[in-house]
Formats: sequence, structure tokens, C-alpha cells
Amino acid sequence: MFKPLLNKLIEKMDGQAIGAILMDKEGISVEKVESGEGLDVETAAMGYSVVLKDIFKAADMIKAGSVSEVFIRSAGYSALMRILDENYFVALFLKPEGNLGKGRFALRTVSTEIRKEL
Amino acid sequence: MFKPLLNKLIEKMDGQAIGAILMDKEGISVEKVESGEGLDVETAAMGYSVVLKDIFKAADMIKAGSVSEVFIRSAGYSALMRILDENYFVALFLKPEGNLGKGRFALRTVSTEIRKEL
Repeated sequence: MFKPLLNKLIEKMDGQAIGAILMDKEGISVEKVESGEGLDVETAAMGYSVVLKDIFKAADMIKAGSVSEVFIRSAGYSALMRILDENYFVALFLKPEGNLGKGRFALRTVSTEIRKEL
Repeated sequence: MFKPLLNKLIEKMDGQAIGAILMDKEGISVEKVESGEGLDVETAAMGYSVVLKDIFKAADMIKAGSVSEVFIRSAGYSALMRILDENYFVALFLKPEGNLGKGRFALRTVSTEIRKEL
């Protein structure tokens, strides 16, 4: 039931996305979609799931409040992560030139639908 | 010489920014500006400087290439960080409702000027 939603997310990005994944906070993939750009979406998201924990810890320490969104842009691709609840997050991977504003909008819309199914 | 540039960054945000800081990767502040919203910009940036190191490590591990930009949105405020070189980054803190697109644009522009002075 999550696959069609992740596919929808990819489609909304008009070729700018290279993958999307629904993952739990321990780095276990629930469902993923790759758009054949050669990125191992699961490994990438797993790497960043560790970072998310570090971010939550830091945010707690500096009293920033609960974290809802994280964006990491690097030379190879951009990762846009949206925290759904205390257990799950969705990550959308974009090509380096991908439009962040568009990605955030698409991710927000689809996240609402995914959250209903969790 | 960095103070006027950080002030310019704050001004560009039309009241949406709560602070900006130029910091080295060890978490030592070079210069900072706070706009009186009660956020201790230095402590917040210090907390996230540790996170940046974790992100660099993760990005390296998953072969994402060098990280140029990190955005963390939380309930209390949003932090937008731009990596200037191997030693320094600039962080711009926005109110929760602050416009991310505007923040990225302002930060990109001012970062170019800061980089010239480093």
C-alpha cells in the first residue's frame, strides 16, 4: 500500500527524483522506489537514519523542539527527509540540480497520505 | 568585518530570522548576530556543529559527495547551514514560520561574500 504513494512522490518530481523510501528509525526499510539512477536508496537512507538520531539528540540538547524535516545537499544528490512520527520517516532523494521547493511540497503532500496508513 | 555581512543576512530576512553565526567546524564562534528573540545562537550552532560532523561522516560512508547545505526544521526554529570550506560554516536561524526559499537565497548570496574574506 505504500509503493503507490512512493511512486506518486517520484512522479510529482518530473524526473528530478532518484528514489524514495519509507523507513523506520532503526534504518529498516518498509518500502522503497528507485528510479534507476544507480543510487542504492536503502543504503543511503540507512546512513542518514543514523544521522537523524544524532540530530534528534542535538535538537533535544539545544531545546529546538521536535524535528520535522531535514535536508542534506551534497555533490552527488540531495536528501529530503520528513519525520512522520516517533518511528518512521520518508526520504526523497533528488538529483543535485533538483528543485528543493518542489520536493518539499511533494513530500509534504504524500507524507500526509502515508501517515494515514501507518 | 563579518558582523556587517551577518547583519545584512538578518536584514534580508525581513524579520523572519532570529540569528546568524559564522562558526568553525570545532564549534568555535567567529562572529554572531542575534535579533533579540531569546535564542542563544552560539549554543544552538555549537550543538549542530557536532551534527554536521556526523553528517559529513555519513555522506562519506554512503558516497554522497561533499555536503554543501543542511537544513533542520524543528518546532522551535529552523536552522539553515551552509558549508563554506573545510573549516567554516554559516548558520542562519529562522522562526518556525520563516521562509526557507528566501533563507537559502539570502544565505547563498552572503556566503559568497563571507568566503571572500576567509
